[in-house]
Parts: sequence; C-alpha cells; structure tokens
Amino acid sequence: MPTLTKTEMLQNAAGRMVPNRVNGRSQTPYLGVGKYRPSGRKAAPPISIIADYPANGDKRVADLETALRKCGLRDGMVLSSHHHLRDGDRVALMALEAASRIGVKDLMWFPSASFPSQQGAIELMEAGVIDHIEGSMNGPLGDYCTQGKMRGMGVLRSHGGRWQAIQDGEVHIDIAVIAAPTADPFGNCDGSHGKSACGSLGFALADSIYADHVIVVTDNLVPFPCIPWQIQGNNVDCVVEVDAIGDPTKIVSGTTQITRSPDRLRIAEFVAFFLRDAGIMRNGFSFQAGAGGIALAFVSYLKRMMRESGIRAHFVRGGSTKYLVELLEEGLTDCILDGQTFDLDGVRSIANNPRHVATSPFTSYNYHGKGNFASMVDAVVLGATEVDVDFNANVVTHSDGRLLHGIGGWQNCLAAGCTILAVPSFRDRIPVIVDEVTTLCGPGELIDVIATERGIAINPRRQDLIDAVRNSKLPIRPLREIKDEVERICGGKPARPTHTDRPVAVVKWVDGTVLDTIWQIDDLADRMT
Amino acid sequence: MPTLTKTEMLQNAAGRMVPNRVNGRSQTPYLGVGKYRPSGRKAAPPISIIADYPANGDKRVADLETALRKCGLRDGMVLSSHHHLRDGDRVALMALEAASRIGVKDLMWFPSASFPSQQGAIELMEAGVIDHIEGSMNGPLGDYCTQGKMRGMGVLRSHGGRWQAIQDGEVHIDIAVIAAPTADPFGNCDGSHGKSACGSLGFALADSIYADHVIVVTDNLVPFPCIPWQIQGNNVDCVVEVDAIGDPTKIVSGTTQITRSPDRLRIAEFVAFFLRDAGIMRNGFSFQAGAGGIALAFVSYLKRMMRESGIRAHFVRGGSTKYLVELLEEGLTDCILDGQTFDLDGVRSIANNPRHVATSPFTSYNYHGKGNFASMVDAVVLGATEVDVDFNANVVTHSDGRLLHGIGGWQNCLAAGCTILAVPSFRDRIPVIVDEVTTLCGPGELIDVIATERGIAINPRRQDLIDAVRNSKLPIRPLREIKDEVERICGGKPARPTHTDRPVAVVKWVDGTVLDTIWQIDDLADRMT
Repeated sequence: MPTLTKTEMLQNAAGRMVPNRVNGRSQTPYLGVGKYRPSGRKAAPPISIIADYPANGDKRVADLETALRKCGLRDGMVLSSHHHLRDGDRVALMALEAASRIGVKDLMWFPSASFPSQQGAIELMEAGVIDHIEGSMNGPLGDYCTQGKMRGMGVLRSHGGRWQAIQDGEVHIDIAVIAAPTADPFGNCDGSHGKSACGSLGFALADSIYADHVIVVTDNLVPFPCIPWQIQGNNVDCVVEVDAIGDPTKIVSGTTQITRSPDRLRIAEFVAFFLRDAGIMRNGFSFQAGAGGIALAFVSYLKRMMRESGIRAHFVRGGSTKYLVELLEEGLTDCILDGQTFDLDGVRSIANNPRHVATSPFTSYNYHGKGNFASMVDAVVLGATEVDVDFNANVVTHSDGRLLHGIGGWQNCLAAGCTILAVPSFRDRIPVIVDEVTTLCGPGELIDVIATERGIAINPRRQDLIDAVRNSKLPIRPLREIKDEVERICGGKPARPTHTDRPVAVVKWVDGTVLDTIWQIDDLADRMT
Repeated sequence: MPTLTKTEMLQNAAGRMVPNRVNGRSQTPYLGVGKYRPSGRKAAPPISIIADYPANGDKRVADLETALRKCGLRDGMVLSSHHHLRDGDRVALMALEAASRIGVKDLMWFPSASFPSQQGAIELMEAGVIDHIEGSMNGPLGDYCTQGKMRGMGVLRSHGGRWQAIQDGEVHIDIAVIAAPTADPFGNCDGSHGKSACGSLGFALADSIYADHVIVVTDNLVPFPCIPWQIQGNNVDCVVEVDAIGDPTKIVSGTTQITRSPDRLRIAEFVAFFLRDAGIMRNGFSFQAGAGGIALAFVSYLKRMMRESGIRAHFVRGGSTKYLVELLEEGLTDCILDGQTFDLDGVRSIANNPRHVATSPFTSYNYHGKGNFASMVDAVVLGATEVDVDFNANVVTHSDGRLLHGIGGWQNCLAAGCTILAVPSFRDRIPVIVDEVTTLCGPGELIDVIATERGIAINPRRQDLIDAVRNSKLPIRPLREIKDEVERICGGKPARPTHTDRPVAVVKWVDGTVLDTIWQIDDLADRMT
C-alpha cells in the first residue's frame, strides 16, 4: 500500500538517486556488485494440516471467485501470477476481475511479468481494486506507470530477483494464481501438454512454494497424478477449471523468426565469429541466447560453425526455440536447461526429450542461493534498449523515459563468463549507444562486449578477451568511436527525457537493493490526478 | 542434548503414558486422529549468497572432514543422513567418524533410518561423539536403545513424520550428509544411475531443503548438469568424492523374493481375494504394498486376477519391486509413484520409464501439508509385529519390548481407503494377535482389516467392508476368535515384557504428538551405566 511518509532520495553506489522507501517498505540502495550481504532465514508459508483438505485429493471448486473467497482474499493482499502464457494469458486478469467482483480494494498485483493484453488491469487500478503492480510491465501498463497514474510504486525485478524477493520475505504472496496447461484435481500441474501448452512453469514455482494460498487454474484437467508435475499439488489449495486459460496463438509462436534485417544479421554473425575467435566456442562450452531476431540468427550462425568444426556444446540455456532444439536433436549440445519455452518446437521437445530440462529461477538465477546456473554459462547474448560509454545498459525504458519492457532474466545472465550485448547502434534514428543510460539495469563492469552492425567494442576490463581476438579479422573498435559515428548518422545524441522529480518505479538489482529509479515523465505531468 | 529437568509422564488420548519432554524439548501428547492443529509458519534455512560459492559451480572439497569443517561442525549439532542405500550405506558412518576425528561431541544423529551395518555408531555413542539417535533404528541400534544405554532418548518417526518434524521446525538439521549414486560438482544429484544406484532419493529431500548446510557424497561424479536431478545443487554447500558410498549387494536386492511359506502365501491370497470381493479391485483403482515376502506374493496374486478380469489400476505406490514394474510394463497400471526402490528392476524402471515417478515424503506422506498422496490410495497392504483386539498395531518392538524396527511409511499409509495388515497369526510360537500391543504405532480406528492364515478380521467400524464381502467365500472371522485360537496353539498369551519405568524412546504420531513410549527393558537394568 502507498505510504504517506515522505520518501527521501539517496545516491547509491552507481551514482543513481533512489528512494529509501518503496510502497511503505524501507530499501537498501545498491551497494555495488556482490557488496550487499543478506542475513536471517528464508520466508516460509504457514503450516497446513491435511485434515483441512479432501482425503480423496479433489480440490476443485466452482470458479475463481469461490477459490479466492476460500483463500481468504481481503483488501490490501498480494495476488501473484506467472507469465508463461505471455501475451496470451487470460488467467491473471480473470483472477483480478473476480477479486473486483468480490469487492476488495488496494491489491498488489505481483505478476512475474505483465503484457499488453492485460491492460484491463488499468481499469482495475482506476477503480482502486489494484493499488499497484510489482513486476515487469510490458507496453501499456509500463506506460501507465511512467505517466504517474499508479498509486503505489512499480518495482521491477529480474526473474532471479523476483525469486530472491519472495524467498527473502521482501514480498509476501497472500494468494498465488497459477495458470496451468495441465493439472489434476489435487493441483499437481505441468506446462508441456494441453491445448494451452507453454513448456516450463518455472516462473510460478516460487509462488507455489512460498504463497500462503495457491490456486491452480486449468483448461486441461487430467486424472491424478498429472505426470510429470512441475508444480506440486501438495502446495495447492484449490483447483479451478475454465474453458481456456489463454489464447494459444499468443502463448507460443508457431515458429520463432530469425531477423531479416541485413544489419541485424550482421550483428548476429559478428557475435558468432566473436565466440569462435575468442576461443569460447570449444568442445564442452555452454551458452545462452534469447528468442529475439538477432539471438536466433546468432544461434543459426553458431550452429553452422559448430557443425563445420565438429564442436559440441555441453549445455545450452533457453528460453528454448526451434533453433536450440535443432542443436539438441543434431547432437550439437548434450542438453537444454530451459527457463521458458518460446515456440512449438520448444514445447514438443521439453515434453518428450529427457535432455530438455525445465529449470526455475531458483536453479538458474537466484542470487541468494548456494550458487546458480547463470555463472556457469560461458557466454550469453542479450539485447538492450541503451548502452552507455561505460558499458552500463538499460533494458526497461526508452530514451524518452517511458517504461515499456521488463528485465526478465537479463540482469541474472550478466553473471556469465562473457556477456555480449548484441544491439543495433541506433533504432528509428535514435542512438542506442549513449553517454549515460536513461535507466541503469546492468552495471558496466559485468558487460563485456557490445556487438553492433558497426563493430564490436570490448570492455577495457576484459583484457583477456581483447588479447584473445587481437589477431582476428573482427571489427573491434572503441565504444566511444562507434557512439560518435552513430551520433553523426542520427544527427546528434538522443534528447534527454525531461521528467518530474516524482519516482514512479524502481529497478532492483539481483540482490534486492535499489539500482535505479524511473521517474514520472514530464510532458504528462498535467494529466496527473 | 539430554535434559536434567525431571521428565513427567502424562496419559495421552490413546491411554498411553508418554513423557512431556524429550531431549530437552517439550512435547504434545497424542490427542487423537486429526485432533492436533499446528500453528505458525514452516521452518526455513538461512539466506545464502552466491558470492560465497564458486562461480564455476565446482563445490568439490577434498574429503568429508574438510566438508564438515567448512559447514561449521561443532558440539551438539544435528547431523542427518538418508537410508536409500539401506544396509549397504557407508556414508552416514563415514561422516560420523569424520566428525569424531574432528573431535566434536554430543551430536544428534538424525538418519531417516539406521541399519545393522551402522552399528559402529554404538562405539561413537560410547565415546560421546553421538549423544543420541532420532530416527528408525533397525536391529542392534534399537536394541542398544532399549537396553537404556543411549544418553538421549530415541525418537521414532514415520517417513511423513520426519518430513513434518523438519518442516515444522521440531528438528533443526545443522548439516545434512547426502549419499548420492550420481552427482555433479555443483551438487545436483540423483539416485537412479551409477554403481551404487538406489532409485529415488526422496528421503533426503527435506534434509536438502531445510538443513543449514548440505554435503553431497558421491562415488559417481558426472559433469554438470546431472540429469535428472532429484536433489538440487542450489541447496548444496560441498561435494565430496569417495570410492564407494555403499555396498551394492546390500543397497538393492538383485531381485526381491516372494515368500515360500505356505501359510504366508495363503495370507497373500486372502488379501488379493479380499480386494477383489470387496470391490476395491476395479478399473482405475490404486494400491500400495511393500517389499516383504507376503506383500510381493499379494501383488503377484492380484496381478493374475487383474489380468484375468481385464482390470487396470490407475496408479500403484512403491516401494517398487520387480512385481510392480511388471504391472507397469504389462499396462496393468498407468504409473508407479515410488518412494523407494527395492530391487534392480525397480532401479532400471525408475531410471528409464517416465511413468515410474520418484516421490518424496512431502508428496506422499506429510501430514502437515495441503493433502498428500497416502489418503488417495484405495488399499494398502502392510505388516505388523503385533495387532491387538482393538485393531491397534505395533511395528517397532517385539513382544519382549525390544526395539528392532523402524516405522517407515507405515503410519502414513494408514490414511488409505482400506488398510489391511497381512500378518501371520504367530511367529516363533509367539502370538502376533494380542490383548494389547506392547507399543502403539497405529490407532485401531485407522486399521480396517487383519488378514492372517487363519482368517480375515474386519474392523467393526467398517460396516461397509463387512457388507461388501458378506456373500463372498472369504474366511471372515472376529479378531478375538482368531486370537483365542492362536493362544491355544501357542500355549497362551505372549509373556508381557517387564520393563523399568525409564523411557528410552518415543513413537511420534504423524502430526508430531507423542503416541507411545518405549521403555528400558528390565533384564538389562543391571547393565546400565
């Protein structure tokens, strides 16, 4: 709930001004990479008793309203949802609308990410049902937030940061609502089968373990036991059957598409060459790449080079796509460790291939664990909305200050052996390489290589990489030189956003400290309520 | 640690005298089935930070001593182990001996069960390294306990009760030592591959989740990632490689053996007929049976009847054996939900068949969860050391008062739709059916049928079962009548054990309350220290 206490702004270790309180909870400003040490014990849900649950294991209730009432929904509670159904999800909004019908107010909606199709949540914010959103806000909801219209503050966390926040008790989920492509009446559920199949359900795992109450919503009820199960029914309170948990055409793409832009293909090729020439592509190596057009093209180039040189990866990390599945099926990698599944080939593979393993933010990304998978990856290829001359990067706002994207696993992936940002040097005639990022999402010390269509810049901190490619034919250039060239092409630096002094959201670092602030944008100040 | 406070004995709801304090911790006497309501939140381990673990994921250390020191071993700590390697386990004793070399004292050893091959622990108790054992004590260790030689009190818990105790914070594990037939350097591990393969590792799951520190010990190190993993490396502190975690000949039987005793075969046949005639054996039914000779014979008879009548089970619960695997492979069951794997056929099946699923005491048995699998099982076939005329049963002591067995999942399984105890009416000329059980492990109200070679007794509370088999040819008889007949054959009732008034161990009920007391036996009182 919003606090009336005056929020003070403090300068953190990255030089950014951040609030000392967010939504009534005091905050630790970012202290530097690895500097914040957590204390205490993990959060834990209440102890239940099986006597309160049906002995025959049938936890079905009539509808979401009944389920929410049964779970004790009341004003001010935290309601969570996951985003494995992406822009096709119907369940989160269904649950929030059911809450609205029940008449509760001031909820905190805690999605692992929200999407344009969920902009109905704006109406619920206007009506006071939702106080604010903590979670990635893609598109209209992020825009609404930067317009200063959300009562509470937005809190953006990485996938690993979301796990960390739940695990560490920073966010207490009262009721988790889990959309399940397959579930049994006991609540065991899985994502890899059913008409709304989405692959892994890892983003919902923390919710299922730590929430006080858990509701599973499915459109594909199977008899107990649902095999395999990624979410355990033993954590579930109620199961609700609905006609459709989502729109299959928007849950997974039929096929993910490689970029056709010659510039972007060139970037992808540079990245693949870099991995080869820097000696990262070697027998037993590992990499992670997303589902964007450049990343897919990169995998395609890399695959060709691996095949030609007879090199096999030991593991690759998804988001999985057709291109990763091909690597696995051709024996070019021993396995896929998959956090989310982007296309139908990915879904088919994770459902059938025991070497295509569903992971969770706990195994992959949680910074407050006994290690995680991200730091074991040799190279990761990521995008960014902006990169600055100190290799700092932004993934959430555009240069005009508008919040339009989530962090995803991006921050967590920076722990890889070699972090490569594969970005066009400008978009829509606005430079991507800037003097200072609008919003800091990733500290430059963790970003090793910027690959653009105009050349590749290596972070001066990585002398080892500079040495490794010294004799290659790669167009290695200083980042400032690329920036200057881009500014000449675009007719100057991007206009700096003018914003009010009102913080509307914060970006958390992977350890729960506050890395940066997102401000209400100025030209909309007059529309404030 | 032992307490000097005078322990008071209270009468519980089953009429048994139980101590109000055990090992310094106050206790709730058994209140009746489903009567005790827990409160509060689950226990949770400390928050870690990945900066304390190697970024390359390699957590190997030289040996167990190094690992224990790294995990901060000191006097009075709780050290846990699992028993999936059964009498073949070498790891628990290895760890306790390493602790002894480090020089710590007064440890509580918290195995999920202990076995005769671990009687070396007696020496460590004599030397003060181990203060006491909480966990099943099979054979010599149980005997040592009933002789009154253990300083602290023994605490016997079911598999589900052990999960409940850890989860509810009754037992705080400082260091868990997990024997792993396969593990990677990060600590991911699995039980279904390797020279010491044992199938499921479910008994170690709670330890891995809730312990402050976790050490994985393996004799089959594979490169990251170990696929599949049942224990997550993200919970693991150190990995230790050893030559052999156990003696394969004692870990799993090559093949489990059906009883050859005509009397016991008769019991098994009665049980199978009972399931058929009571209408429990029907399409889509489920059952659980152990790996004892009678249980195996029962499965064999049942299988024949299922095949003849074209009936398929929906699921069967392991401990898995060749006989359950045959059901699965012949399509007579849709799946096996397996808590432990008893023979090589079981291991092969769980390693390769996705319909043979490893479970844990959390999914199967935890009484303080949102339901569990045990109550969904239509019929369970169990053994007992004694049964009394009120259908109460004992599985831990013999009629002479000696503690020789653990509870296993026995108490948890009593939640099934129909609980059948398949027991010979006497053993070594000592009646199994008695006036009052020496030690109460299962309340009679949960035990439905006693099947002996002399007839089948149905609990009068189960009028539905009595009606169901009224017109069958089964030898249904009152339990007292069978008891009287057995006493005639054996020449009287078994001698009641004479014991001191010193409690040496307690039997917990599935909810953590104290169900009964095990007393120091009298004829050994003079050997007390």
